[in-house]
Amino acid sequence: MYRILKTEGMAKRGELKTVHGTLQTPLFMNVGTAAAIKGALSTEDLNNIKCQIELSNTYHLHLRPGDKIIKQLGGLHKFMVWDKPILTDSGGFQVFSLTTLRKIKEEGVYFNSHIDGRKIFMGPEESMTIQSNLGSTIAMAFDECPPSKADRSYIQASVERTTRWLERCIKKLGELNLLDDTINKAQLLFGINQGGTLKDIRIEHAKRISEFDLPGYAIGGLAVGESHEEMYETIENVVPHLPKDRPTYLMGVGTPANILEAVDRGIDFFDCVMPARNGRHANVYTNKGKLNMLNAKYELDDTPIDDECQCPTCKRYSKAYIRHLFKAKEMLAMRLCVIHNLYYFNNLMEEIRYALDEGRFAQYKKMRLEGFLENDKK
Amino acid sequence: MYRILKTEGMAKRGELKTVHGTLQTPLFMNVGTAAAIKGALSTEDLNNIKCQIELSNTYHLHLRPGDKIIKQLGGLHKFMVWDKPILTDSGGFQVFSLTTLRKIKEEGVYFNSHIDGRKIFMGPEESMTIQSNLGSTIAMAFDECPPSKADRSYIQASVERTTRWLERCIKKLGELNLLDDTINKAQLLFGINQGGTLKDIRIEHAKRISEFDLPGYAIGGLAVGESHEEMYETIENVVPHLPKDRPTYLMGVGTPANILEAVDRGIDFFDCVMPARNGRHANVYTNKGKLNMLNAKYELDDTPIDDECQCPTCKRYSKAYIRHLFKAKEMLAMRLCVIHNLYYFNNLMEEIRYALDEGRFAQYKKMRLEGFLENDKK
Repeated sequence: MYRILKTEGMAKRGELKTVHGTLQTPLFMNVGTAAAIKGALSTEDLNNIKCQIELSNTYHLHLRPGDKIIKQLGGLHKFMVWDKPILTDSGGFQVFSLTTLRKIKEEGVYFNSHIDGRKIFMGPEESMTIQSNLGSTIAMAFDECPPSKADRSYIQASVERTTRWLERCIKKLGELNLLDDTINKAQLLFGINQGGTLKDIRIEHAKRISEFDLPGYAIGGLAVGESHEEMYETIENVVPHLPKDRPTYLMGVGTPANILEAVDRGIDFFDCVMPARNGRHANVYTNKGKLNMLNAKYELDDTPIDDECQCPTCKRYSKAYIRHLFKAKEMLAMRLCVIHNLYYFNNLMEEIRYALDEGRFAQYKKMRLEGFLENDKK
Repeated sequence: MYRILKTEGMAKRGELKTVHGTLQTPLFMNVGTAAAIKGALSTEDLNNIKCQIELSNTYHLHLRPGDKIIKQLGGLHKFMVWDKPILTDSGGFQVFSLTTLRKIKEEGVYFNSHIDGRKIFMGPEESMTIQSNLGSTIAMAFDECPPSKADRSYIQASVERTTRWLERCIKKLGELNLLDDTINKAQLLFGINQGGTLKDIRIEHAKRISEFDLPGYAIGGLAVGESHEEMYETIENVVPHLPKDRPTYLMGVGTPANILEAVDRGIDFFDCVMPARNGRHANVYTNKGKLNMLNAKYELDDTPIDDECQCPTCKRYSKAYIRHLFKAKEMLAMRLCVIHNLYYFNNLMEEIRYALDEGRFAQYKKMRLEGFLENDKK
């Protein structure tokens, strides 16, 4: 299913075959939280910006419109009209970051909806059922992402519970994939490594979950406040203890520099809301670093965001026009910048893959990092 | 430049040759007030929804980003990346509807900007200069749109001033079109008929402006509070006194039913912000009348807005998905509905042209009007 095509140091160039097509890794997942990319992008737009795989959020779709409704409508692929792979997260991260009055028990988590306050319970079985109803290509295991400031004993206990929850996820998804009315009977499950920045707990947990021989493994709980050095160190500690012949996914990361460093340490999958969020706030990525489209110096600039960029925005529109659209509060401003930013990330991954194919990733990484503005190097 | 290809009663099927391509009439102009269609549509989207001509607002572009800046950037066509015709209004209507502390003098209008309150003066020469800087295909004469409740003596005086202003517009645009650095040296000028719902003043004014032998004539000051019957009556009164061999433009109108009735009375050009505004508020047009996408009955409806519609939205997306997007406050909701609504209007005009070509407009009009819901027939 997953095979490594090439390696360079710890960096892997791989591919993952799924029922929705073959993914070329390393890759960046474009985030469509509520079954849509924020910034008015349609899935047709995604097809024009080198997007291989879309990521949607289990928690949001469970609350609205409801996973049962999406199942009745034929699953998430049909609902949002996207026939390439979709990864759904487990809902865990949102439950721990968006909700109030949470109670974590062995069976799962009791919490209040951030939309209408109603009480909801989600445990491993519920998360798997929801993701099965959505029919995503890859489901994520239900885990706890412990607070970054939590003490050692809390993290130890949390990680052990996450392992027990993983066993329940595997059992439940196995059952769901056998049912007649399941949308995607070949739904894959990725396990998630946790442990904060505590090296021994991270490694012990990585070894433990590797025993389950899952089709992929994620590193969760990073990019939540620790330094970039701690993040890179944790990846270096964990990756050697995950099966090499499985794709690895660094959840919620990150900047172009983060991605280059993490690929170098063996990561295949990335996702991050920042390119779309930055685009909506007039911040755009280039190989020289980020630019702010509201800058007065662009008032008469008839060149594109990036002369070398082949994205649908840069092929047509000038900085002066985009700046005007932001000043005039035209929604098109956000759409054009989100298109550019997601293309930038998808294209960066393509360049990384080509560099790996040709055995010059180290050189490519060095060139890119040197090109970024100081602020964008971290 | 304009020629009539076919007539049926008063209805005209024509074409207008311009430096930016030939327009087939009757047509609907898609409104991009601040050089963008509201709802995050790009000019690339316009190319996919049968849009022949875009309309932008002189007043808005004068204030932001400034017509001189657009001229420096090569004109409005280059700025917004649209190579088909553009009509700019004169700014008059916005000056009379959006601004405060207005003073109308013979030389023009003094008013305060609705953005930052600064004092601005606009008269016929200023309006022509701004529209020349924008380089639109068709410029509109600077007129006063008198309040619909104004008394006879006010309307009489206003209309006479509008005629004097028209003479100044013609003189000024003639000069501007001869300058070396003018963006569009073949910019056309349409005159505007005013007179409220006062038949004799309307007719007298129509005769008077017809003497200038302009490339086109508009009927202004309608759809501002009078009844549909009064609107239709005014069109019936005015059109016979405008040159038949020139295109006619009914400003700011209207509903599909309004358009069918006005075509039947000899109108070539239409524009209206309602299709885009309605789309942003989840109201979509069909041949059976308007639907509201927030209606709970669409929760599980996997059919498009209109089964027969060939627009980019209806070819891909379901009512259930669009409803979900509105509930989740995703900008894509607005974009999909604006695309559908503008396509609906552009396609309606195409059907009207085909019906006129084949001498069955009366029959087509009857069929469409009978199909609409009661509320949408007016």
